Amino acid sequence: MPRTLILECNNKVGETVTVSGWVHVRRDHGKIGFLDVYDRTGTIQVFCTGDKLGDIRPQDVVEISGIVAQRPEKLINPNIPTGKIELQAETVKGISKAHELPFDMGGKDLDLQLPTLLDFRSLTLRHPKVKSIFKVQAALMEGFRKAATELDCVEIFVPTIAASSTEGGAEVFKVDYYGHKAFMTQSPQLYKQMLIPVYERVFTIAHAYRAEPSVTTRHLSESIQLDCEFGFVDFNELLDLLEEVAVKMLKHVEEKCEEIFKEFNLEKIHFGEIPRFTLREAQEIIFKEFGRDNRKEKDLTPQDEIDICKYALEKFDSDFVTITKFPAIAKPFYTMPDPENPEYSLSYDLLFRGVEVLSGSQRVSDYEQLVEAIKSRGLDTKSFEMYLQAFKYGMPPEGGFSFGLERLTMHILNLANVRQASLFPRDMERVDVRLSTLK
Amino acid sequence: MPRTLILECNNKVGETVTVSGWVHVRRDHGKIGFLDVYDRTGTIQVFCTGDKLGDIRPQDVVEISGIVAQRPEKLINPNIPTGKIELQAETVKGISKAHELPFDMGGKDLDLQLPTLLDFRSLTLRHPKVKSIFKVQAALMEGFRKAATELDCVEIFVPTIAASSTEGGAEVFKVDYYGHKAFMTQSPQLYKQMLIPVYERVFTIAHAYRAEPSVTTRHLSESIQLDCEFGFVDFNELLDLLEEVAVKMLKHVEEKCEEIFKEFNLEKIHFGEIPRFTLREAQEIIFKEFGRDNRKEKDLTPQDEIDICKYALEKFDSDFVTITKFPAIAKPFYTMPDPENPEYSLSYDLLFRGVEVLSGSQRVSDYEQLVEAIKSRGLDTKSFEMYLQAFKYGMPPEGGFSFGLERLTMHILNLANVRQASLFPRDMERVDVRLSTLK
Repeated sequence: MPRTLILECNNKVGETVTVSGWVHVRRDHGKIGFLDVYDRTGTIQVFCTGDKLGDIRPQDVVEISGIVAQRPEKLINPNIPTGKIELQAETVKGISKAHELPFDMGGKDLDLQLPTLLDFRSLTLRHPKVKSIFKVQAALMEGFRKAATELDCVEIFVPTIAASSTEGGAEVFKVDYYGHKAFMTQSPQLYKQMLIPVYERVFTIAHAYRAEPSVTTRHLSESIQLDCEFGFVDFNELLDLLEEVAVKMLKHVEEKCEEIFKEFNLEKIHFGEIPRFTLREAQEIIFKEFGRDNRKEKDLTPQDEIDICKYALEKFDSDFVTITKFPAIAKPFYTMPDPENPEYSLSYDLLFRGVEVLSGSQRVSDYEQLVEAIKSRGLDTKSFEMYLQAFKYGMPPEGGFSFGLERLTMHILNLANVRQASLFPRDMERVDVRLSTLK
Repeated sequence: MPRTLILECNNKVGETVTVSGWVHVRRDHGKIGFLDVYDRTGTIQVFCTGDKLGDIRPQDVVEISGIVAQRPEKLINPNIPTGKIELQAETVKGISKAHELPFDMGGKDLDLQLPTLLDFRSLTLRHPKVKSIFKVQAALMEGFRKAATELDCVEIFVPTIAASSTEGGAEVFKVDYYGHKAFMTQSPQLYKQMLIPVYERVFTIAHAYRAEPSVTTRHLSESIQLDCEFGFVDFNELLDLLEEVAVKMLKHVEEKCEEIFKEFNLEKIHFGEIPRFTLREAQEIIFKEFGRDNRKEKDLTPQDEIDICKYALEKFDSDFVTITKFPAIAKPFYTMPDPENPEYSLSYDLLFRGVEVLSGSQRVSDYEQLVEAIKSRGLDTKSFEMYLQAFKYGMPPEGGFSFGLERLTMHILNLANVRQASLFPRDMERVDVRLSTLK
């Protein structure tokens, strides 16, 4: 009999069907038993009598034939799309036998310490709530592409192996490239800028590599960035653009992942008009409203980020805040200094619910000025030959921004650690398995 | 005055507008002159009198104010969407001055040798015909995602740094990973398989790294792969699925890039029913129809691929051919042997116009069989710990395939070298600049 997808069973009450999937849980009640079986479309309750269940256990792949029946009124589960039906099994066939699980996967939450969650990653990803995380991530990506495409951005594919470190700094991974020393790119930054004279507006989804020798809840050694870059724009247009993309992305996710938002007990996102503060204005607010004087710091502290978001939510009904004009010295060489006060820069971060999820800037677009900026950071212009070439032959005012995909996923879902928002996180202790276990 | 996009000028005849963009060509005729100026929406002819053009030259970024006028009937250019209008310049303002170009960029084709094309990549990408290549690439990607999404595949993001080489073999790039030896992945293969028990159907866009010490027209050291993987499928369903995705992708591109297909003088793609031959059947056809006896070879030769495609086009009106059942020994360990004849495998390639653009297979999905397959290739199961974990806990019959993005782009557009289909190609001689020029 051909396979029926589980969600389709809703339309097959009274019919005999065959479903295939994984056993999520097994519940025995004397001579009868139940399975929850999932496939890509959903989960169905399977009712069994006699010894049909045999040694079936969680994660077994099974093929079950039986009759789709309405559940009695009082057994209806309103929380799942197949909550009104069950499958009354006639035959239960094992397709692939799972080894005994190292921990229980049947609970609503998967209460495991992070190392265990990652040591058994191929298994723990199957838990419904973990699965949901990466459905949100896929929806974020879809929303991003939709927003960028609507803004006329062309998708580009840029390399990750480069001859020099992208933005200076020591925290880069070295690659042995046919006997030459090469580096994994810290971002697609330079390449997306080089494409401005080609397409004027571009977007790219890129891997970013940071060899930071630290283990925090916020950093990954390999992560995914969502980048846009726009030509013929000024600073205020850039702020409009980044906010438009962010809002469209998040609205897309909220709409597409409504069920998951419920599963995670998430509050609706507040889409009030996004307030824009310069760093100094934000620090002034922190000082006045929260009593901490950080007015000379180069950046917001983590607590400042939380508090300024709290302020924005109260006063503007917005879960976002845009912070602008960070000190020039704190930003990379390609960041445009503020013409009104070159100590500061035409840079910005977008905060979402207490955390930075995007950063970007107006760029230095003048060739001579860019050469000077590179030199003034002690970098070698020879390392930026192809990049500088793009500016040598006509570059308009331009700028852009970049979202961190894992970090954004993490904060939408209120996860404790960014590693939970990466399918196979890389950090200084782990590449799938713990590095300490490798020769 | 606010900027008017060039394509919008079609609706502004008689009005005064300001357009911004890059000068593509300048033509002087005594006291009058013309510019072709492009922005992200198109190209417009600008008519100038007097000395308004000054020292304006190709690739300068300009802002031009003037009146949009109808062109006289005989000067209409039917080949471009703005061919009926021109802009009569009142002011021409230089925004960014280009250095003198090292070669002429004004011709319909950019006749440069490959090394020059790549030495000046930031510049040569601006040539209209080069630009078109990557518009086709973006459309291919869009078509792929659309097709994969329609088949219920969830998009996943997998890492590129791994603790061991993906598929065995020596041609991998080594990374210094916090003092440990790690590798750049040769493909997303193992990860996409690990996600089958999570989402049943997945797709991913991934970077693939091959340290092949050879310089051919077909190989890149870093390339983009478009991958799908499906659970609960058999061999014939896989063939249906790959052909469905391929056809949808190519139809999407042909529709979306109609103008570019004209620009490149491309024939319409032939979408007749795709013939399927086993390798041995294909070799038999080659022997009978083309007189070459390669019936004992492990793969088709390049000339065989060309000829079998010629045959498919004549007999089936199809630009595609699916070749199946390659010798097991020629395929990676995860390839399912043919149960009817284990010397062969449940593998397949898709050929398009004489070249392989996709490959894939039914996979070994049984844990014990997979362990044996790894060992029999002399590989260490310890290196596949996380991968094997996915099979230990319930894995259905599954399989998938992978397109090479650059190679497919190359063959759609009839390019001579795959490097032309990569924005910034990596090979053993170049990482943007030639490696020989680096210290």
